Amino acid sequence: MMLYFENDYAEGAAPAVLQALVDSNMEHLPGYGEDKYSKRAADKIRTALDCPQATVKFITGGTQTNALALDILLAPYEGIIAADTAHINTHEAGAIEFTGHKVLAQPSQSGKIDATTIQKFLEEWRADGSHEHMVQPGMVYLTFPTEYGTLYTAEELRAISDVCRANALQLYVDGARLAYGLAASADVTLPLLAELCDAFYIGGTKCGALAGEALVIPRPERVPAHLVNRIKQHGALVAKGRLLGVQFDALFTDGLYLRLGEHALAMAATLHDALVDNGLQLFIDSPTNQQFVVPDNAQRDQLAKMVRFSVWGKYDDTHTVIRLATSWATTAEDVAALDAELRRL
Amino acid sequence: MMLYFENDYAEGAAPAVLQALVDSNMEHLPGYGEDKYSKRAADKIRTALDCPQATVKFITGGTQTNALALDILLAPYEGIIAADTAHINTHEAGAIEFTGHKVLAQPSQSGKIDATTIQKFLEEWRADGSHEHMVQPGMVYLTFPTEYGTLYTAEELRAISDVCRANALQLYVDGARLAYGLAASADVTLPLLAELCDAFYIGGTKCGALAGEALVIPRPERVPAHLVNRIKQHGALVAKGRLLGVQFDALFTDGLYLRLGEHALAMAATLHDALVDNGLQLFIDSPTNQQFVVPDNAQRDQLAKMVRFSVWGKYDDTHTVIRLATSWATTAEDVAALDAELRRL
Amino acid sequence: MMLYFENDYAEGAAPAVLQALVDSNMEHLPGYGEDKYSKRAADKIRTALDCPQATVKFITGGTQTNALALDILLAPYEGIIAADTAHINTHEAGAIEFTGHKVLAQPSQSGKIDATTIQKFLEEWRADGSHEHMVQPGMVYLTFPTEYGTLYTAEELRAISDVCRANALQLYVDGARLAYGLAASADVTLPLLAELCDAFYIGGTKCGALAGEALVIPRPERVPAHLVNRIKQHGALVAKGRLLGVQFDALFTDGLYLRLGEHALAMAATLHDALVDNGLQLFIDSPTNQQFVVPDNAQRDQLAKMVRFSVWGKYDDTHTVIRLATSWATTAEDVAALDAELRRL
Amino acid sequence: MMLYFENDYAEGAAPAVLQALVDSNMEHLPGYGEDKYSKRAADKIRTALDCPQATVKFITGGTQTNALALDILLAPYEGIIAADTAHINTHEAGAIEFTGHKVLAQPSQSGKIDATTIQKFLEEWRADGSHEHMVQPGMVYLTFPTEYGTLYTAEELRAISDVCRANALQLYVDGARLAYGLAASADVTLPLLAELCDAFYIGGTKCGALAGEALVIPRPERVPAHLVNRIKQHGALVAKGRLLGVQFDALFTDGLYLRLGEHALAMAATLHDALVDNGLQLFIDSPTNQQFVVPDNAQRDQLAKMVRFSVWGKYDDTHTVIRLATSWATTAEDVAALDAELRRL
Repeated sequence: MMLYFENDYAEGAAPAVLQALVDSNMEHLPGYGEDKYSKRAADKIRTALDCPQATVKFITGGTQTNALALDILLAPYEGIIAADTAHINTHEAGAIEFTGHKVLAQPSQSGKIDATTIQKFLEEWRADGSHEHMVQPGMVYLTFPTEYGTLYTAEELRAISDVCRANALQLYVDGARLAYGLAASADVTLPLLAELCDAFYIGGTKCGALAGEALVIPRPERVPAHLVNRIKQHGALVAKGRLLGVQFDALFTDGLYLRLGEHALAMAATLHDALVDNGLQLFIDSPTNQQFVVPDNAQRDQLAKMVRFSVWGKYDDTHTVIRLATSWATTAEDVAALDAELRRL
Repeated sequence: MMLYFENDYAEGAAPAVLQALVDSNMEHLPGYGEDKYSKRAADKIRTALDCPQATVKFITGGTQTNALALDILLAPYEGIIAADTAHINTHEAGAIEFTGHKVLAQPSQSGKIDATTIQKFLEEWRADGSHEHMVQPGMVYLTFPTEYGTLYTAEELRAISDVCRANALQLYVDGARLAYGLAASADVTLPLLAELCDAFYIGGTKCGALAGEALVIPRPERVPAHLVNRIKQHGALVAKGRLLGVQFDALFTDGLYLRLGEHALAMAATLHDALVDNGLQLFIDSPTNQQFVVPDNAQRDQLAKMVRFSVWGKYDDTHTVIRLATSWATTAEDVAALDAELRRL
Repeated sequence: MMLYFENDYAEGAAPAVLQALVDSNMEHLPGYGEDKYSKRAADKIRTALDCPQATVKFITGGTQTNALALDILLAPYEGIIAADTAHINTHEAGAIEFTGHKVLAQPSQSGKIDATTIQKFLEEWRADGSHEHMVQPGMVYLTFPTEYGTLYTAEELRAISDVCRANALQLYVDGARLAYGLAASADVTLPLLAELCDAFYIGGTKCGALAGEALVIPRPERVPAHLVNRIKQHGALVAKGRLLGVQFDALFTDGLYLRLGEHALAMAATLHDALVDNGLQLFIDSPTNQQFVVPDNAQRDQLAKMVRFSVWGKYDDTHTVIRLATSWATTAEDVAALDAELRRL
Repeated sequence: MMLYFENDYAEGAAPAVLQALVDSNMEHLPGYGEDKYSKRAADKIRTALDCPQATVKFITGGTQTNALALDILLAPYEGIIAADTAHINTHEAGAIEFTGHKVLAQPSQSGKIDATTIQKFLEEWRADGSHEHMVQPGMVYLTFPTEYGTLYTAEELRAISDVCRANALQLYVDGARLAYGLAASADVTLPLLAELCDAFYIGGTKCGALAGEALVIPRPERVPAHLVNRIKQHGALVAKGRLLGVQFDALFTDGLYLRLGEHALAMAATLHDALVDNGLQLFIDSPTNQQFVVPDNAQRDQLAKMVRFSVWGKYDDTHTVIRLATSWATTAEDVAALDAELRRL
């Protein structure tokens, strides 16, 4: 029996989410997100955000959400400050540049950039006398959790938000794995994101949905004109918006979204202990559902016989960085079985 | 009780399609279309096309499929010849131009253009001495069925294909409602489309799926380099490709796709008779699941109390063009109930 | 000796314009349009416009000016209403669509559209219930003179401007041949254009300059943010802005620009008489420097031995539409020699 | 009297270039680069390149040439490897990303990247398992001379070219200041560039022309289809192509282009000595026409009273990096006068 820790999108939808799709299947509903489920899901998200004025739109996938949101939130001449390791800078096939915007990549630590780095970039930008020949910085893009599973603290987010507001930059958070980040964070909450961000998205695809991300624009004055029109122009308007609305309605019923995150985190904690207890070196001490370790290549090959994981890259000539991820679908039995495998290494 | 004839995307998925999503839900599957369902669905489609070399990719929605396919199939300087009433020219919010390509709109009849019109356009284009200052025509875009529910015959498609091949134009068919077109056509089949087209898509969203269109490129030499990369760059690569693969696998099992179309057509025939028998004037004599009639405005308002339909536009000061659509989900009871309503007008 | 009536850009610069380039050549001047000539030229243009608040930027060529101006003046989701015969719709190689905007082509008469056509388009657009799926009309584009040498009257322009302002559309005039239009018009003046237009350009390339167009945005509230930045982003910022500034400074000294236009018009009037007197049928009765006639093909071939003209298209099986153009560089001797040739036909 | 060392584009055209514009001014010539001067200039450049099959097109400015050439030479999904200090990465306002391509910035030394850096990037790119989610590297972009006045040796260029050819990357050289680079280099010549590059441009604007760059594509198989069409689509096709053709014809007559470079280099050598002899610290030891020194801020302010220079950035709290540039227009008297000023510091 193979054990699956390869990623957090290997199964379909969380059972309650799937059931909601089944239950609503034969209802006659209007298209293009005008259905009652999409509206109710948006309402529930606004409640969870404690932000009654937020605009919420459901988009199919993460790269699409990023490419759409950054393009419509920015002026055509503005670029995006992001970590050099940011998903938009490394693994979205240039989807951001495809819309005409430059990613202004900054040095990062374990997937994070900080307020000081942003401040320094702005100072150097201003010191150059050729502003009108340079890309205008318009936004800071963060991932929460980052690509390395790390988290910003509320204090770090506030510091970045302060720099943004002092410099007329928008703040955007890519929450592809937000459920896992919220579950792991001591102080970052949905209301805090609504307070600090100009826009962010609540990831569904990796957190219990078959597909779907909820793009949130907390403040009405930030909502681009003709928002639906621009979603359509980007090819991102789904005819059966119910597909996304029904799922998010279920995810935001009885706190399911956060509970899915908490379950994955509990599994990740056990996984973390199993890895460490069995002598594997952590590549990075991730607090979230992605765990990175450095087996030697013999261990790696042995493990690969029974466990699916992601290869993150070469560590040195004899070691490899691998990633094991839990999700809402991971069971205690899965982790126990993995622990048993690890003991045999 | 309201009767729903507003469009063909008001319900979720056909029962067998939904069941396939339920059944496969907890399977561990690779992402980005590499799952076994996506592969099997592509195989089944190739069989249905009688075209073993076809490339098949699943995309979430119709506008996205058009914008992606036209952009990657064309050189950046090429435009698309299409009916002035074509969906890409009227109701996709400029998504084609957003990728840099011009739609070269041509006069149409009941949603159709013909080989002669295309030939005439090409002759005038060539007669202009300023070719290098003009958009290069690179493709002919057709809808099948058209926006008015009409169909091209096999002979008409062959004539257009002949003009295309004689002039190095690609031929692309937008099959958003292909199931209904195939069910209604005497001679247009999936293998014929594979023979004549450089690319086309088999619509799922309006023909039994929750979401999804199957983009087909029959000939290997037409497949753009780095196809997955370009889908990603367009924001159209779905992480859980299973969502689309499982549905198309079900749609192409035991001829379900065509059967759904045939059911809708049977309902449309009954609907057509009910409309005509009750004295409503046909706006256009559509052979497919979209029926267009011209009630006077009093009839329109009376009907609206019990029936959902689409308003297509003003006919004259006292009449309105309305559209009633059947789908895989329409029942004989729905049509009978509508007939009863019509008798009271 | 060949006679040149092929177009209005066959010679270099008007003598005074060339002399200004020679005289200023060794002056040390700042780059990117910050030189004193560019500033002085802008001042002189503002004076000629009677519009002290106008923003004036010098761009190298016409297609570049159109592509830049339309892109930066419009929101990304807006399209441009234009005559189907408009230069941007026919002979700019899709440069407008290349920036993502759709040209909403309208039926035209002799190169012109009118307020009624625009009004009708808007009414039909509004009658369609799917606005958010359609390109938002954002601008009306006119050419003055048109591609057929025709002119809008002040009254016609006012009517179009009224429709634009009542419907939140910008009005843009492509003045590639503006000098010739102003010289021919009874009532359209630079101040009128400044009053009615949101933007327009004063063509230099075809009206006495080696290269250069003056983009005018009369009202400060219409000037896009970071204007120089956007010009640079479009690749349209010239390092030696003096090249354009010096020429427009000369063109707007002592009314040279209008005088060049008047000279070409005087030549065109003589040309017009010569054509008519010698029995050539006018294709269109153009009041400006472009004259269109319909020789039979034998006449056409005979004429081509001594005269350069442009072939506009086939008229019928035995006749061809040809264009003869005068310019600032046409001499009375040229027209007299042409008249002699025509007599021999 | 102010002394001008601010940049190399402060004057108009070299006298012989200006005279050629004057001499040809009243000739009737076809437009859009079809004139005899443009053709002759291209022929002369092909001779200078020792590359009879090269395609040569004249474009107005440097950013425009880069944005055009990179876009049309690359597939839409390809990015450009360049130094982080490269002009396209820092001072072209995102004009490259505006066409949809990502700049893959690499660490550099004094403006240069080397074959090892490129090789290392490619290895890391390949080691990532997600190629289809990443921008495909398609080109290496170099500046010669670099933004810091430094030069690649023939050996360095060959090493980079070897990496490019082994990895199916195109090699492009931005020669905005090529005349000065060729004059300073011991072994890099026009024929060598034609041998090693897939495309490059010979800068006119900063090397003796009023405007213009000559884009060279040495090998016919690299020339994009419909080249003129694509130049037009980019808004870069000049109606009076003679403006550029006449100037390059003059620049490539009797070796003028290289002689202008040699003159500027001789002036730069004297300038270099004056700077060093007067105790100014070199920021970088540039072999070309741009000289970078580090005065203390009091010296800087004193110098600014009599000399125009560019401020490159803060060196430390008490010193500033400034740039002084010579050009074809710099005279021995200018440098002697500067030397006198420096003695007084």
